[in-house]
Amino acid sequence: MKFLVINGVNLNLTGKREKGVYGTNSLEEINAYIKAYCEVGEDQVDFYQSNLEGEICNKLHEAFLKGGYDGILLNAGAFTHYSYAIRDAIAAIDIPVVEVHMSNVHAREEFRRMSVISEVCKGTVCGFGAGSYIAGIVGLCETLQKSE
Amino acid sequence: MKFLVINGVNLNLTGKREKGVYGTNSLEEINAYIKAYCEVGEDQVDFYQSNLEGEICNKLHEAFLKGGYDGILLNAGAFTHYSYAIRDAIAAIDIPVVEVHMSNVHAREEFRRMSVISEVCKGTVCGFGAGSYIAGIVGLCETLQKSE
Amino acid sequence: MKFLVINGVNLNLTGKREKGVYGTNSLEEINAYIKAYCEVGEDQVDFYQSNLEGEICNKLHEAFLKGGYDGILLNAGAFTHYSYAIRDAIAAIDIPVVEVHMSNVHAREEFRRMSVISEVCKGTVCGFGAGSYIAGIVGLCETLQKSE
Amino acid sequence: MKFLVINGVNLNLTGKREKGVYGTNSLEEINAYIKAYCEVGEDQVDFYQSNLEGEICNKLHEAFLKGGYDGILLNAGAFTHYSYAIRDAIAAIDIPVVEVHMSNVHAREEFRRMSVISEVCKGTVCGFGAGSYIAGIVGLCETLQKSE
Amino acid sequence: MKFLVINGVNLNLTGKREKGVYGTNSLEEINAYIKAYCEVGEDQVDFYQSNLEGEICNKLHEAFLKGGYDGILLNAGAFTHYSYAIRDAIAAIDIPVVEVHMSNVHAREEFRRMSVISEVCKGTVCGFGAGSYIAGIVGLCETLQKSE
Amino acid sequence: MKFLVINGVNLNLTGKREKGVYGTNSLEEINAYIKAYCEVGEDQVDFYQSNLEGEICNKLHEAFLKGGYDGILLNAGAFTHYSYAIRDAIAAIDIPVVEVHMSNVHAREEFRRMSVISEVCKGTVCGFGAGSYIAGIVGLCETLQKSE
Amino acid sequence: MKFLVINGVNLNLTGKREKGVYGTNSLEEINAYIKAYCEVGEDQVDFYQSNLEGEICNKLHEAFLKGGYDGILLNAGAFTHYSYAIRDAIAAIDIPVVEVHMSNVHAREEFRRMSVISEVCKGTVCGFGAGSYIAGIVGLCETLQKSE
Amino acid sequence: MKFLVINGVNLNLTGKREKGVYGTNSLEEINAYIKAYCEVGEDQVDFYQSNLEGEICNKLHEAFLKGGYDGILLNAGAFTHYSYAIRDAIAAIDIPVVEVHMSNVHAREEFRRMSVISEVCKGTVCGFGAGSYIAGIVGLCETLQKSE
Amino acid sequence: MKFLVINGVNLNLTGKREKGVYGTNSLEEINAYIKAYCEVGEDQVDFYQSNLEGEICNKLHEAFLKGGYDGILLNAGAFTHYSYAIRDAIAAIDIPVVEVHMSNVHAREEFRRMSVISEVCKGTVCGFGAGSYIAGIVGLCETLQKSE
Amino acid sequence: MKFLVINGVNLNLTGKREKGVYGTNSLEEINAYIKAYCEVGEDQVDFYQSNLEGEICNKLHEAFLKGGYDGILLNAGAFTHYSYAIRDAIAAIDIPVVEVHMSNVHAREEFRRMSVISEVCKGTVCGFGAGSYIAGIVGLCETLQKSE
Amino acid sequence: MKFLVINGVNLNLTGKREKGVYGTNSLEEINAYIKAYCEVGEDQVDFYQSNLEGEICNKLHEAFLKGGYDGILLNAGAFTHYSYAIRDAIAAIDIPVVEVHMSNVHAREEFRRMSVISEVCKGTVCGFGAGSYIAGIVGLCETLQKSE
Amino acid sequence: MKFLVINGVNLNLTGKREKGVYGTNSLEEINAYIKAYCEVGEDQVDFYQSNLEGEICNKLHEAFLKGGYDGILLNAGAFTHYSYAIRDAIAAIDIPVVEVHMSNVHAREEFRRMSVISEVCKGTVCGFGAGSYIAGIVGLCETLQKSE
Repeated sequence: MKFLVINGVNLNLTGKREKGVYGTNSLEEINAYIKAYCEVGEDQVDFYQSNLEGEICNKLHEAFLKGGYDGILLNAGAFTHYSYAIRDAIAAIDIPVVEVHMSNVHAREEFRRMSVISEVCKGTVCGFGAGSYIAGIVGLCETLQKSE
Repeated sequence: MKFLVINGVNLNLTGKREKGVYGTNSLEEINAYIKAYCEVGEDQVDFYQSNLEGEICNKLHEAFLKGGYDGILLNAGAFTHYSYAIRDAIAAIDIPVVEVHMSNVHAREEFRRMSVISEVCKGTVCGFGAGSYIAGIVGLCETLQKSE
Repeated sequence: MKFLVINGVNLNLTGKREKGVYGTNSLEEINAYIKAYCEVGEDQVDFYQSNLEGEICNKLHEAFLKGGYDGILLNAGAFTHYSYAIRDAIAAIDIPVVEVHMSNVHAREEFRRMSVISEVCKGTVCGFGAGSYIAGIVGLCETLQKSE
Repeated sequence: MKFLVINGVNLNLTGKREKGVYGTNSLEEINAYIKAYCEVGEDQVDFYQSNLEGEICNKLHEAFLKGGYDGILLNAGAFTHYSYAIRDAIAAIDIPVVEVHMSNVHAREEFRRMSVISEVCKGTVCGFGAGSYIAGIVGLCETLQKSE
Repeated sequence: MKFLVINGVNLNLTGKREKGVYGTNSLEEINAYIKAYCEVGEDQVDFYQSNLEGEICNKLHEAFLKGGYDGILLNAGAFTHYSYAIRDAIAAIDIPVVEVHMSNVHAREEFRRMSVISEVCKGTVCGFGAGSYIAGIVGLCETLQKSE
Repeated sequence: MKFLVINGVNLNLTGKREKGVYGTNSLEEINAYIKAYCEVGEDQVDFYQSNLEGEICNKLHEAFLKGGYDGILLNAGAFTHYSYAIRDAIAAIDIPVVEVHMSNVHAREEFRRMSVISEVCKGTVCGFGAGSYIAGIVGLCETLQKSE
Repeated sequence: MKFLVINGVNLNLTGKREKGVYGTNSLEEINAYIKAYCEVGEDQVDFYQSNLEGEICNKLHEAFLKGGYDGILLNAGAFTHYSYAIRDAIAAIDIPVVEVHMSNVHAREEFRRMSVISEVCKGTVCGFGAGSYIAGIVGLCETLQKSE
Repeated sequence: MKFLVINGVNLNLTGKREKGVYGTNSLEEINAYIKAYCEVGEDQVDFYQSNLEGEICNKLHEAFLKGGYDGILLNAGAFTHYSYAIRDAIAAIDIPVVEVHMSNVHAREEFRRMSVISEVCKGTVCGFGAGSYIAGIVGLCETLQKSE
Repeated sequence: MKFLVINGVNLNLTGKREKGVYGTNSLEEINAYIKAYCEVGEDQVDFYQSNLEGEICNKLHEAFLKGGYDGILLNAGAFTHYSYAIRDAIAAIDIPVVEVHMSNVHAREEFRRMSVISEVCKGTVCGFGAGSYIAGIVGLCETLQKSE
Repeated sequence: MKFLVINGVNLNLTGKREKGVYGTNSLEEINAYIKAYCEVGEDQVDFYQSNLEGEICNKLHEAFLKGGYDGILLNAGAFTHYSYAIRDAIAAIDIPVVEVHMSNVHAREEFRRMSVISEVCKGTVCGFGAGSYIAGIVGLCETLQKSE
Repeated sequence: MKFLVINGVNLNLTGKREKGVYGTNSLEEINAYIKAYCEVGEDQVDFYQSNLEGEICNKLHEAFLKGGYDGILLNAGAFTHYSYAIRDAIAAIDIPVVEVHMSNVHAREEFRRMSVISEVCKGTVCGFGAGSYIAGIVGLCETLQKSE
Repeated sequence: MKFLVINGVNLNLTGKREKGVYGTNSLEEINAYIKAYCEVGEDQVDFYQSNLEGEICNKLHEAFLKGGYDGILLNAGAFTHYSYAIRDAIAAIDIPVVEVHMSNVHAREEFRRMSVISEVCKGTVCGFGAGSYIAGIVGLCETLQKSE
């Protein structure tokens, strides 16, 4: 299978900021870790990161229009809490999207408990650090295999 | 590693009720599937189900006092939304607990979006059917390996 | 037809507490009155009371799994206001459940106006004292006869 | 005994609108059914319907000032949710009023869960279709017999 | 000067209902009392009562279109709490309107504290029984004399 | 095609009140303007105005029961903000209703932003003065032509 | 009869501040006007003003403990909106207190609509400028005469 | 006259996504339809679409600074519900802007009922599919002709 | 005098969990300390702990039906915040109940500030660790002696 | 040990007002009772009362700056519900403060349930009449002895 | 120019309390620092501090009535969050007032984010410790120079 | 020292829009004024403006990664009220950021009182027009000098 991992705003700074929350690995290292995991299962994975909400919408559109992905893992960062634009983009496409957060968003500021995208995602995973992406891929595979 | 899977109220009816939401597999079949998955990775797993909130607290206490588990997967069912008792039980013990839901709770009734236990759990997984337990185990393994 | 009357928490004290609100008849006397009413119409009726939320869920499950009842009259007492567990149990079974209250819950404390189970019940009756159970049976018969 | 059945706004269209919610019987047929039920018990019943809130208040006043009714069954329709005028009219008269709804108002739009008249009614019944009126009469009889 | 006293819904029952709240004088006796008070000051006064919201709007329109009144005393009864229709009618006319209540609405049910018409009235008086109308006339005279 | 324009409470004062908000044309002049517009397109149009909520419900019922109209333009005035009665009347009939306001209700008092009827209307138009009715007719024609 | 007029915080600036809202008469001039009005009816009146919440409580206590007043007119100024201390002082004494405001508090900022003292006052008057005090005295006399 | 039609986020997918809500015509086809309509009336129309909030602000600025447009039709898509940036851009320019939605946003998810831009627009139109743009142009022409 | 000390959910873990909040003494040690204190005053004391809400209700019923206790000290743990069942059980019995918390619940999570049982208790004590039980007994003695 | 008892606004009227709520003992009698209790345990106690919020802050500052007290018992009266000034004064000093209320504030008006000072106090006691002060002293001694 | 610096409740303890939040300098040292800064620019500055809300109102009145100040810097302390009395005093005078806080009130307790005085101040400054007063003076000078 | 001034959405129109609120100086003139002020103190200053939220995040990242700035002055415009993305970008970098607004945001629309970035900024300044930037620089210098 083939997955697309999309990281949203500020996630390019992972490993360089608030290390107590996000750990010391850079986004590149995390991506490499995910890629290695996928290769074991002979799955393919592409990566995309942007700090612009509209470009994330564009990427979701492109994945939908061009096809080829079995699922998308989306860590929208702070956009999670207010971007109805991204929500509508997810709802508009027919590829299952998994909402991923590295930290346990429920144990942080109140506003992080509110996600405007969960409702239109296939599922959500949070709290396992970089492992959240891995768990998301596993969850996605489980449901994709079942619906075959 | 050794895990404990706790299922809360009404989950004993899985496969017999609201099949559109919860699928047609019985809880026993789901447990067997989880067990099979764990055995591949040479992990051990025990199962517990109760419709009584207080007994779930007792089980969490027991796991803590007797020791032996590396992590707990808890699908508290409807208790998720109001049981501060279970919340306090989770907070009281030093075993990481993962909140699991088979359905995407964010795409159902409004009250299901409110979890009083998320804040004291290690992480949460929802939306992958029985696969949510598998994804939760993977996520847990990821964080346990990292903190070693 | 055959009915099951389930009374929830503290209703075992009926006739012994807050007599201004609940009257002076004991639960046994109320049950006898309901039984007498049913026998006139050649209907059967069983009774169950528990102060444990989980046992009420168990009873609802049992009624569903064993079959035999045409309808259930449930006075959940204070569980009415927060037990999403009982709500889910009602939603999980295919027997029509009528929510019953002896007092007019809308004319008491604010919190008693909020019922988390109404939405998944067939109908609700309140305010007629022990007569609420009788009215509930009549309402149930009306709808059962119509759907035959 | 003698009852007055008051139906509020839009209920004259019953059987002609939203048949999935309100069934296919016209208000006249429902009234005939209620009348037949009352005649069995040698009770009398009058009927009134209006789409004007103020006329319903007038009817309640008239019933109070002229006397003769043992109880009133009021299906206020949409007025239920905001007419403090009808609420005050009910509170002003000394005839017991039962709030009746054919559908289960708790399982429909959120605003239908809010009734401004429940607090001043004797009791409420909902969810049994035309049978709600019958159940309301039974409940009323139960409490009237008890208070004799 | 010439005043118009408008009484809204259920106020025709004054003296016949909830005497603890509204006293034992009928609306006719209260009107006679107001009339006597006005005659002392050589002021004229007319009276109108209706249980229909729309007719009160019509009366306000008529007073505006025909002219002749220096001020209006409006006890809208329960319409006070939700009738934006009456609010707009008051706002539409250029005669000062005083909101009057016989009881202290702030010491009763919570919903009575909310008035949708106060904002567009000249002033408000409550709590003095029938004396509230007299106080309202005095207040109105005070402001009318000042603005001359 | 044939349309019915219904104007609600206080709209009979248009041109005579709050001219800054509603302009200086009377309702008769506005109706004439609409009629002229319709005649160009060989459409027919009838007009109705009432200050009584219940009579507006009656008119909606009549349009439904007698038939003959392709669409209704409803400026409910202040009823827009609380009349669940009119809402239910709209929902009960199978003629498309367009919610019309002359002013931009979103740029006025907070309560004017809340409409209880929008949800059951075909569409809404506001802010173009008398032109809102014209725009509503155009919008209605667009959708009617498409659904043919 | 004998009255006490208490003016709260900032009212000493009346006539010197926000003249569009409060007019151009100084507090001394307003007091003189009230005194003149009372002398016509052979009533006595004393005046007190303070910008300190606690001193207003002290004055209310003193009026209660020393006796001699038939009623109190209280314009608490901004204390109206949060001083539960003054509220409790009013509730503690057995002299009727009338809440007075010169402006129509309902037509100003939202926070001015909330009064924490209304509930324990005999009545309220607002919107008639200095005339509000006069109307309050009239209202008080009306109720005092009735309860004799 | 000359108009600018701006479509916001995800509207480029119109006709390709959620066809039950948005129909099967592509944005290009809708634009062609609008253009054809304008040409009948000898009006000119330009089109712009972007998924980036900031670029929509830029476009609004440009229309203002360069001049030439008599009005703007803005379907901001999901930005409608939270983009105070676009709101401020609309408020900053002196060209009338009409808020347009193809679907009836009041009959969909709760969050779609909240628009942060309505308050600074000239008017709003929704619910007529592609016809909403046409109705918006008509409404705009009506008000522009009046203000000439 | 004779007291009953009831400890609710998770309090059996006291001394073993979150020692920063609850101290290091076990529940047995705390009970021994309370017992020693009572023996000094020649008062008797019994102890009960359960993690099941329904069993706490049963214990309260039993204390009421069997009699013998002058007062009850109830530390309901997390049940404090949502158990209307325990609330009703307290209200149903005629033994004064004191709500006790070891920690200062007002200085912890927001949800701990909300108690559904305070309203029906005699009084409340919190913040003194194990000393809260002692203070509760003293408070109870004070009021019991006064009411003799 | 040495304690300071501070009573806030209106408490000087204790025994003279609302005797149903506060009993018939004057503040002087209550203070004498507390003093007698303390002398038994060879503790010292001072008393202070003021109706001025700022003077209570001053007293708290003085106790802190001069030293000498082991703890403070504060019955802030109505200031409890809004005085962030007193809250900050408590937080500023390093003497433990116990919040005391004679009545059960949770069983009275809704606003009395909200305390802005609890969060920064050591503990709270309410509901035992004058005995609440005694229970507060006992609770304070318990914690002071433990922290020695 | 000439400024008045007013410090409200508890600010006299600055440097003696919560040093992590407010630093270790006493109010006298802070005032000296401000004075030194002003003297550089040949501006004059007076200082006032009170723990009594009413006295701060009095000081604001005095500054207004006596004249002489070009601007006021007000750190109202906890009064910021509820003193509508101070708010009205600021609104009543025609000297520009700057709201000053030493700490960043937005990064502390939720209630500190709510200021009832900001709306009537010229501007606000917070977060720079004693430097907030300096920044406030600079801001004030900037606007005063511009409006000359 | 060296500062970076970032202006957000629509601020490029300053001097060209809503001149009553923002004055008549263009952003270039304001920047020149700030630059002149800084040169007096031998401080350096750079300027950046963008209407794209994501580019502002990028700029904040760049300032952090490249280093060189002692502080940032950020006027985020409308992004202030909802951009959690910018909030997280500020929290992610270790350069102190001052929130700046030219107008007094507390005296405008309600939504402008809510800032999602204040909590993670060093301090805030508003209300002094272009002088707000100068005051912000002064405040920043004050705290930077103190922390050296």
